[in-house]
Amino acid sequence: MTHETLDASAGTLPAEAIDAIERAATSAHRHEELFSERAANIRQSAVRDVFDISMRPGLVSLAGGSPYLQSLPLERLSATAADIIAKDGLTALQYGAGQGTPELREQICEVMAAEGILDARPQNVVVTAGSQSAQDVATKLFCNPGDVVLVEDPTYVGALNTFEAYQVRVETVEMDQFGLVPELLEARIAALQLAGRSIKFLYTIPNFNNPSGITLARERRQQVVDICRRANILVLEDNPYGLLRFEGEPLPPLRAANPDDVIYLGSFSKIFAPGLRIGWALVPEHLQRRYYLAAESVTLCPPALNQMLVSAYLRDYDWKGQIETYRGLYAERCRAMLAALKEYMPAGTTWTSPQGGFFVWVTLPEGIDTYPLLRKAIDAGVVFIPGAAFTPSDEPSNKLRLAFSAVPPDTIAEGVRRLAPVLQEAIAAL
Amino acid sequence: MTHETLDASAGTLPAEAIDAIERAATSAHRHEELFSERAANIRQSAVRDVFDISMRPGLVSLAGGSPYLQSLPLERLSATAADIIAKDGLTALQYGAGQGTPELREQICEVMAAEGILDARPQNVVVTAGSQSAQDVATKLFCNPGDVVLVEDPTYVGALNTFEAYQVRVETVEMDQFGLVPELLEARIAALQLAGRSIKFLYTIPNFNNPSGITLARERRQQVVDICRRANILVLEDNPYGLLRFEGEPLPPLRAANPDDVIYLGSFSKIFAPGLRIGWALVPEHLQRRYYLAAESVTLCPPALNQMLVSAYLRDYDWKGQIETYRGLYAERCRAMLAALKEYMPAGTTWTSPQGGFFVWVTLPEGIDTYPLLRKAIDAGVVFIPGAAFTPSDEPSNKLRLAFSAVPPDTIAEGVRRLAPVLQEAIAAL
Repeated sequence: MTHETLDASAGTLPAEAIDAIERAATSAHRHEELFSERAANIRQSAVRDVFDISMRPGLVSLAGGSPYLQSLPLERLSATAADIIAKDGLTALQYGAGQGTPELREQICEVMAAEGILDARPQNVVVTAGSQSAQDVATKLFCNPGDVVLVEDPTYVGALNTFEAYQVRVETVEMDQFGLVPELLEARIAALQLAGRSIKFLYTIPNFNNPSGITLARERRQQVVDICRRANILVLEDNPYGLLRFEGEPLPPLRAANPDDVIYLGSFSKIFAPGLRIGWALVPEHLQRRYYLAAESVTLCPPALNQMLVSAYLRDYDWKGQIETYRGLYAERCRAMLAALKEYMPAGTTWTSPQGGFFVWVTLPEGIDTYPLLRKAIDAGVVFIPGAAFTPSDEPSNKLRLAFSAVPPDTIAEGVRRLAPVLQEAIAAL
Repeated sequence: MTHETLDASAGTLPAEAIDAIERAATSAHRHEELFSERAANIRQSAVRDVFDISMRPGLVSLAGGSPYLQSLPLERLSATAADIIAKDGLTALQYGAGQGTPELREQICEVMAAEGILDARPQNVVVTAGSQSAQDVATKLFCNPGDVVLVEDPTYVGALNTFEAYQVRVETVEMDQFGLVPELLEARIAALQLAGRSIKFLYTIPNFNNPSGITLARERRQQVVDICRRANILVLEDNPYGLLRFEGEPLPPLRAANPDDVIYLGSFSKIFAPGLRIGWALVPEHLQRRYYLAAESVTLCPPALNQMLVSAYLRDYDWKGQIETYRGLYAERCRAMLAALKEYMPAGTTWTSPQGGFFVWVTLPEGIDTYPLLRKAIDAGVVFIPGAAFTPSDEPSNKLRLAFSAVPPDTIAEGVRRLAPVLQEAIAAL
């Protein structure tokens, strides 16, 4: 950045500006040695990269996994927020408890009960700044540099960035259409432990995995936990989309029958509002205190106003009805996307058929790298996330993620229609 | 915890409950080896420890450094929050940019201009979840385990917890009544570097230091930065109280004349509302991108609603007038505390006279440990924070922190009156 500025305009700048630029360049040089080893591992997320691009008018964004907030009762929420500040402003705007408010932690247990976790206790819930922060805290608490975290291939890009910031070695386990393959998980663990690697946890999104939309099959769920338990590995279960199932029967979270082996992460970002940044971890009793202290060392306490707004929403609104609305909405959008894919996608492409969540995962023929296709797609008026974002490797990927959550059915169809020739051209060039 | 439960009640529990407890105890045992090395460094803050106690009715809390929010225009803020959600809810409740909203970053530059930083640019501002999170990100970005962070003695307990969670060696530099002593800082750095230690930054609260209330003298400010620059050490300047000066002339932040060597941390917690958890870092141009990415890896993005409420407050309210109100309020409370100390404190005690901020620092005769006195003070109806909380050492401390920010003058006087005999007794027992 500094050098570009120098090259472009040094000739026309006043002397003191040139001094300033040179001083900064010198500082950049001498401060380079101050970075931690982990700093080299902290990278830009491809999803965030395209965040600004996605906002351009005229573009169809199938990139971001944003919930469709238009269906929220904004007028009523406006009045609720006003009420909270007018009546309880001295609490809402003040410092609060590091673990989160007692009321919200009680209510979070009810939300988890709707997911199938019936024995959660408020004292084992830690409210966090979104579930990204809950992942950060788990990694902080368990991972030394060089330790292994197992993830599904593909997995959530934000979690990858968080893990890598702790110099963790992220190792992938293959999925098929029914999710993680227990035999492959077991074999992978055995090989890594045989090689002397210290594996700390398996990070998994069992419901409607981001980015693939794949769900871990019922009969594999206990198997996965048992394999981890036998190998003395914790499970970090991330379930932001669990309640957004629009097809098939609900499956119990891994945490449900395994209170001592699973740290369960939940979020209000998908079932209510991501802009509040309120997520949580349900932590096994014997790990709770250290987890909570680690969370406090990062953010001191979660924002009181935001917690109170979520509490009011869970207390006074038909939040389950709103989830029904979301389910119908996302089901319709998912159907629109699958229909458009069927109509427009060139031969040689395949895709997943999710039963919930926000994403469809498209596979192109081997040998195609979807990353350079992004630029062409943007030129064609549509944005997606290239598959390479969702694995720890730097290998090219022939996959891409399409999100159907944030745009109406017609726009989804138009986006897929715009994408098709870009993919067609890449396939033809093989 | 588990063992207490077992001892106390195992005889009366049903078999399945006993099974559950034994299973958890076994898990606790086998999961112990999974903790990271840093986990052992993550500790309870003494300030947070007494947070719950401070809420007990009848107690006078001189413990927490909470701002006095009663003076905020809550009715109007209520209407503002309502407006934001009603008119801009789709933005306020949605994901946002990881660096913070452009509007707030512009406004933060104006706030810093009021502090004496005239050249801040919005692109170098990163909005964080309170300035605690900004400290966390700085440590993440710069500190390997074993690296040294220099701090004033005493310093902010939350920062100590954050640093220690990264296995940093926190080394203290002595202050006198004019703040950090440059000669001692220089000697300390030389000794540490001679011993081969890698020092990454000096963390300093130059204005009305928490807990001591001491302010770094004008003539020492540039000296401190120059010493650090010569040794190639960054300065992490934490200035939450800077605008809350009620006496003496304003002093320029260390950052003002040193854009390339100082990461400046600001916060709306003391000048507006801590419950929103909105702070920021002004980062030197050449460090900005990596700082921002590290922030994103922890919390993805700061809450949009909270940022928009701060923006509206800075845009539409007389926020400088409100700061004047705070100054008058805290000046009065500080005077009340100093008067009460003069009236009630036993011989042998001394205390600081802050020119701003929230805290007075009381020193008892050598040989007294203020930690065990806390229990006696609570019995006497008053809470303080023992001095040991504010240093990295485990040594007993003969100091204690009194906060005058959150309670009215009469209550302050009553609190000091209750504290006096506890200290008197300890002195008499020497």
